[in-house]
Amino acid sequence: MTDSSEKLYSSKKPRHAIAPTRSEDYPEWYQQVIRAADLAEVSPVRGCMVIKPWGYAIWERMQSILDGMFKATGHKNAYFPLFIPLRYFQKEAEHVAGFAKECAVVTHTRLEADKDGRLRPVSPLDEPLIVRPTSETIIGEMFAQWIHSYRDLPLKINQWANIVRWEMRTRLFLRTSEFLWQEGHTAHRTAEEAQEETARMLEIYRKFAEEDMAMPVICGEKSTHERFPGAVQTFCIEAMMQDHKALQAGTSHFLGQNFAKSAHISFMDEMGREALVWTTSWGVSTRLMGGLIMTHADDDGLVLPPRLAPIQIIIIPISHNVDTQTPILEYIDALEKRLRQLSFRSEPLRFEVDRRDLRGGEKNWEWIKKGVPLRVEIGPRDRERQELTVSRRDRMSKQTMACEAFIADVVDLLEDIQNQLFQKAMNFSKSHTIRIDTCEEFYDFFTPQNSEKPEIHGGFALSHWNGSAEVEKKLQSELGVTLRCIPLSSLAEDDAGTCPFSGEKSQQRVLFAKAY
Amino acid sequence: MTDSSEKLYSSKKPRHAIAPTRSEDYPEWYQQVIRAADLAEVSPVRGCMVIKPWGYAIWERMQSILDGMFKATGHKNAYFPLFIPLRYFQKEAEHVAGFAKECAVVTHTRLEADKDGRLRPVSPLDEPLIVRPTSETIIGEMFAQWIHSYRDLPLKINQWANIVRWEMRTRLFLRTSEFLWQEGHTAHRTAEEAQEETARMLEIYRKFAEEDMAMPVICGEKSTHERFPGAVQTFCIEAMMQDHKALQAGTSHFLGQNFAKSAHISFMDEMGREALVWTTSWGVSTRLMGGLIMTHADDDGLVLPPRLAPIQIIIIPISHNVDTQTPILEYIDALEKRLRQLSFRSEPLRFEVDRRDLRGGEKNWEWIKKGVPLRVEIGPRDRERQELTVSRRDRMSKQTMACEAFIADVVDLLEDIQNQLFQKAMNFSKSHTIRIDTCEEFYDFFTPQNSEKPEIHGGFALSHWNGSAEVEKKLQSELGVTLRCIPLSSLAEDDAGTCPFSGEKSQQRVLFAKAY
Repeated sequence: MTDSSEKLYSSKKPRHAIAPTRSEDYPEWYQQVIRAADLAEVSPVRGCMVIKPWGYAIWERMQSILDGMFKATGHKNAYFPLFIPLRYFQKEAEHVAGFAKECAVVTHTRLEADKDGRLRPVSPLDEPLIVRPTSETIIGEMFAQWIHSYRDLPLKINQWANIVRWEMRTRLFLRTSEFLWQEGHTAHRTAEEAQEETARMLEIYRKFAEEDMAMPVICGEKSTHERFPGAVQTFCIEAMMQDHKALQAGTSHFLGQNFAKSAHISFMDEMGREALVWTTSWGVSTRLMGGLIMTHADDDGLVLPPRLAPIQIIIIPISHNVDTQTPILEYIDALEKRLRQLSFRSEPLRFEVDRRDLRGGEKNWEWIKKGVPLRVEIGPRDRERQELTVSRRDRMSKQTMACEAFIADVVDLLEDIQNQLFQKAMNFSKSHTIRIDTCEEFYDFFTPQNSEKPEIHGGFALSHWNGSAEVEKKLQSELGVTLRCIPLSSLAEDDAGTCPFSGEKSQQRVLFAKAY
Repeated sequence: MTDSSEKLYSSKKPRHAIAPTRSEDYPEWYQQVIRAADLAEVSPVRGCMVIKPWGYAIWERMQSILDGMFKATGHKNAYFPLFIPLRYFQKEAEHVAGFAKECAVVTHTRLEADKDGRLRPVSPLDEPLIVRPTSETIIGEMFAQWIHSYRDLPLKINQWANIVRWEMRTRLFLRTSEFLWQEGHTAHRTAEEAQEETARMLEIYRKFAEEDMAMPVICGEKSTHERFPGAVQTFCIEAMMQDHKALQAGTSHFLGQNFAKSAHISFMDEMGREALVWTTSWGVSTRLMGGLIMTHADDDGLVLPPRLAPIQIIIIPISHNVDTQTPILEYIDALEKRLRQLSFRSEPLRFEVDRRDLRGGEKNWEWIKKGVPLRVEIGPRDRERQELTVSRRDRMSKQTMACEAFIADVVDLLEDIQNQLFQKAMNFSKSHTIRIDTCEEFYDFFTPQNSEKPEIHGGFALSHWNGSAEVEKKLQSELGVTLRCIPLSSLAEDDAGTCPFSGEKSQQRVLFAKAY
């Protein structure tokens, strides 16, 4: 128990696993957390990432929980083609305009060596194929074939898939040319039903973000300027990152009859009349991984909420000689048997024993950086006394306790970590969310005051707004600030007011922030 | 209980849900089973399919079981880019030659409207990107970065992904331009270790095929001629379909140091010497769905082994008036509570109540065509007598039994269906597998004898072979027969013999068949 790295927290000048720290260089800290936790890396393919096993395991946790929520609300998974023929893509004018600038286009289907032996694309396609940047158009084509009568409605489909949007400036998880996501696509008989679906899925995203990711979010509607290309209304969840910027973490779109019109998705109603359906789409992506990191990670690396941790408890045997090794491993076997009988939020506990031939301190640091919620170290004296030493990742605490007490408390401990992480993030978000009523204060708020740390400043500003895209464009070009959403619940008590940017009347406060 | 469709099995001239039947037109029967069970359909995108909810749910079952087996043997999931830069693709000469003729090539990253408003690809890429037809080259690049020392080995990674191989003649599930699969990629210190891994994964595929899909397979090694491009050895599982053709259902490749050389994947051994790793790769795809259909489906549609059935038991209330409806649904609620406590092969039972407002016969037929193993019908008299009526999908049987007896027996019933399906398929496969020792008999065996039903003939021929690709090419061009594999277990007792095609010596019998 005397490994030097374990004394870390008691020493006066704390050492950190991540260099630089958040306050030293926030964007670089983000990259270093990803590296330290071994989540993902930049691939040799421009703009595309490789998601490494620990990162992918967290994504699998996200998928599994969300998939269960989608199925519980009557959605079924299906799979649609990766490629979208140009003519489909072109059908919805706003939609194509929104994606045309960032498309990977397949034009050939064969490679052939030229005279010098270099491979060249040959066999050009008659019609280029777009690698899906989203699937409204191709799924719309299928819906048009599948839907005939009101009995076929609602049709509620979800797809887990890879997506390509050619990005010039990429950042791991937050903005990559290829990413993984789910996209829900539903068709309904009435506008009301489709709007209910849009709201239901937004609520599922909020619940997942807050209860599983422990990431507080603000639910709201996007302004016309920020809407999904082709949507009538776009709703979103927005979370505050530790540099006070906003991250759009999920969107749910009411598409009206726009895609129904362009793909002719119609049905026969009970009266035998033909009518167009009303559609929705909604999605979250591997971007959530970025949100998870920037909500909870600290200067020692990732911090995982127990619900999403692929391993909730890592058990580390500490033995320096062969004599003590066997009894410790037997002691751990008995502990494992007990843990196997426990469950956290209706799932069996996820724990592992790190039996690798490495120093205890080295293992310990690895699991700190990977964000495992609880670390349990067991040395010879722990075994003799039927004790163990527990460290919480969310606090710099370390506690020796009786093995029986640990077994009795472990589920509550995980529950407490899950709740504390949410509470801490909520307090952080609230403390950087302010009401601003003057243009000057607004500009001040979003201008770095400390030129050495320009990355961390500002926050969420709740201000009045006259509803015009001109104000949005001005704030975006002058401050890099965007209207994140028109909050659904009134975050401010005063409903109406005056827009500080135009002096015009305003219906309600809206949320402004710099954003990822 | 007097619905006309329920009398089906007792009538003298059986009616079938699928037209044409297998014996009438086998290839068309296959398409019609897929349509009747609502598994998938051809999409408007050339060669790509849409996997519909019922088909995708079966694929999810396959994924879930295989994923568990991969993880239990120490493999971790990760995700690699969809695109492969041309220069990586080109590194392994045999590999690129094997795939160059069927590649989707991305050449542009933007669309722009021309004078007539038509979109055209612009912004050409400096280097074309290949949509992955398999990922050895890109994963090899990453392995080269990740592996430094012997301590980093073995590295055992799996990826669930979509794959594109541009096919001119496609058939749903069996051969499509885009398909879903998993690809395992591992790196090892020694050839022996990599060979053990190759064998381990082949055994996992065999176990999955036989125990979960109830599809008997023959394990063997491919001839040099049929090997994966770039592999040193390719092993496979081959299953017999109901038209007596072979389906290659999974492959496991020992790649030697071929990809290690081309991507420079080296490590420092315990002695501080640099050495190349030994790699493997292995995969199964949505092609398994085709194997599942052609192993078990009959002239009434799909037949699902309980292990893979998304719904194992469908409960159909039969009530023609409102008075009886409520008591029946209450009776079913009580049944559901009991079923929820049962499990089949360590998983909770999967059952559903079909509460839709449709005639009982209509529902019944739908679930027959979808292949659900057990159908439970409950009418007013069943409820009064505390009984229910059970139909097995694998037999044309229907039995009224006490509700308590059903609850006591249902897990055994599912077990019996799983086993009977395997046994039936095994008997079928054996009855069409023969030893052939003369060239004449071989040509007879693979020539349709009945010109009206040319689709169903032949089977698996175990014959001697001199080891030359010339014989293989001759049989392929003259009969359309290929060497499926050199069986790993001796299927014939006589080890050595004479090749009937060349008169030369032969080491052992090998498996010939027409194949998908």
